[in-house]
Amino acid sequence: MGLVVQKFGGTSVGNVDRIKHVADRVIEEKLRGNDVVVVVSAMGKTTDELVGLASQISSRPNKREMDMLLTTGEQVTIALLSMVLIEKGYEAISFTGWQAGIETEAVHGNARILHINTSKIQTELHKGKIVVVAGFQGIAIDGAVSTLGRGGSDTTAVALAAALKADKCDIYTDVTGVFTTDPRYVKEARKLKSVSYDEMLELANLGAGVLHPRAVEYAKNYAVPLEVRSSMERENGTIIEEEVSMEQSLVVRGVAFEDEITRVSVLGLPNGLTNLSTIFSILAKNHLNVDIIIQSMTNESTTNLSFSIKSSDLEETMAVLQSHKSELQYEGIEAEPNLAKVSIVGSGMISNPGVAAEMFEVLAAGGIQVKMVSTSEIKVSTVIEEAQMLKAVEALHEAFELSGKSVKA
Amino acid sequence: MGLVVQKFGGTSVGNVDRIKHVADRVIEEKLRGNDVVVVVSAMGKTTDELVGLASQISSRPNKREMDMLLTTGEQVTIALLSMVLIEKGYEAISFTGWQAGIETEAVHGNARILHINTSKIQTELHKGKIVVVAGFQGIAIDGAVSTLGRGGSDTTAVALAAALKADKCDIYTDVTGVFTTDPRYVKEARKLKSVSYDEMLELANLGAGVLHPRAVEYAKNYAVPLEVRSSMERENGTIIEEEVSMEQSLVVRGVAFEDEITRVSVLGLPNGLTNLSTIFSILAKNHLNVDIIIQSMTNESTTNLSFSIKSSDLEETMAVLQSHKSELQYEGIEAEPNLAKVSIVGSGMISNPGVAAEMFEVLAAGGIQVKMVSTSEIKVSTVIEEAQMLKAVEALHEAFELSGKSVKA
Repeated sequence: MGLVVQKFGGTSVGNVDRIKHVADRVIEEKLRGNDVVVVVSAMGKTTDELVGLASQISSRPNKREMDMLLTTGEQVTIALLSMVLIEKGYEAISFTGWQAGIETEAVHGNARILHINTSKIQTELHKGKIVVVAGFQGIAIDGAVSTLGRGGSDTTAVALAAALKADKCDIYTDVTGVFTTDPRYVKEARKLKSVSYDEMLELANLGAGVLHPRAVEYAKNYAVPLEVRSSMERENGTIIEEEVSMEQSLVVRGVAFEDEITRVSVLGLPNGLTNLSTIFSILAKNHLNVDIIIQSMTNESTTNLSFSIKSSDLEETMAVLQSHKSELQYEGIEAEPNLAKVSIVGSGMISNPGVAAEMFEVLAAGGIQVKMVSTSEIKVSTVIEEAQMLKAVEALHEAFELSGKSVKA
Repeated sequence: MGLVVQKFGGTSVGNVDRIKHVADRVIEEKLRGNDVVVVVSAMGKTTDELVGLASQISSRPNKREMDMLLTTGEQVTIALLSMVLIEKGYEAISFTGWQAGIETEAVHGNARILHINTSKIQTELHKGKIVVVAGFQGIAIDGAVSTLGRGGSDTTAVALAAALKADKCDIYTDVTGVFTTDPRYVKEARKLKSVSYDEMLELANLGAGVLHPRAVEYAKNYAVPLEVRSSMERENGTIIEEEVSMEQSLVVRGVAFEDEITRVSVLGLPNGLTNLSTIFSILAKNHLNVDIIIQSMTNESTTNLSFSIKSSDLEETMAVLQSHKSELQYEGIEAEPNLAKVSIVGSGMISNPGVAAEMFEVLAAGGIQVKMVSTSEIKVSTVIEEAQMLKAVEALHEAFELSGKSVKA
C-alpha cells in the first residue's frame, strides 16, 4: 500500500484504444492497493499538428502563445483518460498543470519547476480517486501557462513523485527498459535490471532516448526511484536507483552510439585567455551545439582546436566561423564529416582506470582508428569513422561482457 | 475612443487563413483608436471532433471531463489569433476562461456566469494590448474548468462587454445581420437596421440562429448595445438595442418559421388540478420539449389537450405517454405530423391589437388553415401544414410591408 506515479508518453496514448489500454495499466496498479497519480503526454502526433498550425503563422511564433497552444494537447489526453477510468467504474479526476499546482519560472518553452503545491492532488487521493495530470506544463509565477521543454512529461512525473514522496515512479515507454546498447542495431543487446542515476544520465545524454536527462537529474537530486518499462508488455523494466549493488554491477554497463557527426578543426588560433570562450559563445548564440572539444597547443603563439558537431549543423557552423574570421584571427578551418560517436558507460569505471585503455585496445584490434576522445568519471566517448560504427559497438559490447547470458545485472 | 468587444464564431476562425482575416478586422477596430477585447470560439469542426473522441469512450461521458476536453478548442484559437496579431506587429495577449476571470457556478456543460473579475483584462488593456479571450468557458467556484453551453461564446462576449462597460459588442457571424425572414428561402427578405432586445429574443427563440437567446437576455439585462454583422462583408449589420425609435419601427419586424413540427393531442383527459402539471413534468423528465400548448375543456369532466413538438421527438413522446396511460387516465392520443410553425414578431404589436387578426386574414386569403395559435405581447405563432409554410411566409412578409423597398427600419 503506497503511492505510485505512472507516466505514459505520446505513443502510449496515441488513440482512444491505446488510452483504454493505458487505463487498464492504471487500474492494475490501483487494484494492488496503491494510490495512483498518472501523468500523460499529448496524443501521438497532436503536438506536431499544433506546431504545424503555428508555422502557418510565423517562423518564430510568440513563445507565450505557443505554450498556450501546445498545452491543449495534454489537456485532451487527461480528459479522455479520466473518462475511460470513470466509464470503467473507477473514480478519477483530471488536472491541468495549473490545477495540479506545478509552478514554474516565468519563462516560455523551457521553464523550470520552482515548486509544486500538491494540496489539490492530495485532497483527491484521500478521497480514493485516481488523479490524472497533464505532463509537460505548469503555471508561471505571472499566471501564464508555461511548458517544460523536451522530455517535459518525464520531468512532471519525477517532480510529482518527489513532491508527493511517492514510493515509485514508473515511466511507461515503447521499449521494455534500458539496454546495454540499441537492440534495433545490435541483436546481442540485453536489458539491464538496474542502472544508477549517473549511468542513466550518461546513457540519456548519449542518445538512449528512453528518458530525458533533465528528468533523470531531477530523480537523482530527490532520490526518486524510477522504473522504465513497457506500456505494452507485462515484463519488468529497468530500475534506476542511487547505488547498484556491486555484485550486480559490471564495469561497463552500456554502449551508446550516434552517427552523422562531423569534426570541425580551427587551425592556428592565436593563444589567448579569451579566444576559447569567444569562439564557443559565438556558436552558442547561433544555437549550434558542440559536443566533444579537444585543444592542442601547437606552438607558443597558436593553438589547433577541434570539436564535434551534428553533421546537419555543418553548413551553418562554417558560415558563422567564417563571418567572425577577423575577430578570431585563425589561419584556417577544416571539416571532416561522416564520423560517429561510440561511448561506453558504467559507474564501475571510476575504480577501474584501465577501462579506457581496454576500449582503445578493442578498437585498435578491429582496425578502427580513434579520431577524438572524451572522458568523464563514468564514460569514455570516442569519435570514429561512421562506416565502422556498428562494428565498434559490437566489438565493445562483446569485449565488456554485455552480450547474451554474460550479463549479470 | 472607447472599448469594443468583438466576437467571432467557429466558421469565422475555421482555419489559419480565416484567423488571419479575423485579425485584420480586429486591427481595423484598434486603428480606429479603440481598446479591443476579442472573444473567439473553437475552430470550425474542432468541437465535433472532440465530441467524437469522447463518444468512442462513453455514450454519457463524465461532464467535468467533457468540459476539460472541449475547452481546449477555444484555447487553440486564442493562441493562434494572438500569434497572428503579434506577427502583424500588434501587442496581443490571450486568456483562457479561468485567466480572464470568468467565474461560473459549479455546474458542467451549461454553467451560468456568477461574476467576472476583469482585473487581468483591464491591466493588459491599459498596456495597450489587444486581449483575446476564449469564449464558451469559465472557471467554476470549485476550481474546475466549466463551459457555458450552447451559444456560450455569444454569452462570454456580452458578459465581458457588460463587466467592462464596453461601448459596444459586435457579434461577427456568417450572415450580414438580422433579416425580416430567412433570406435563404425568401428572396424578398431584407436586413433590419435595428431590432429591440425583446424582438431579437423572440426571433432567436423562433430559430433565427444568428444569436443565442441567452446572450440576448444577458444583453437586455445589462443594456449592452449589440451589433450582429458579417465577418466577411464590410457593410453595417443589425443593431440590437433597448428602444427602436417609432418612426423606424414597423408593427411587424420579422417572419420566422420552422418545419418538421407535429401536433400531439391527448383526448379525454380527466379534469383535475394536477393533471396538466403531471403530463408536462413527465415529458420534461424525458427531455422532450413542448412548444405551443392548447387546452380546450370539452365537457365538465374531461379536457382535450394539444401541444406541438419536433417531429423527431414523436416516437419517444408517444412511448412515454402510453407508458403513463394508467396514471393519466386519458381516453386516446392522436398525432398529426408534417406541420410547420410560422410566426410574426414585432414590439409594435403591443399597441396594435388587430395584428393577429390581420395575420389570420392573410393566411385565410391564401387558403391556409391554422391548426394552432399561440401569442405573446410581441409575437403571434401559428401552426399550419408544412407544405404551405413558404407560401404563408411570403404572403405575411408581403402583407406586413417587409419586402423590398417598403422596409423602413
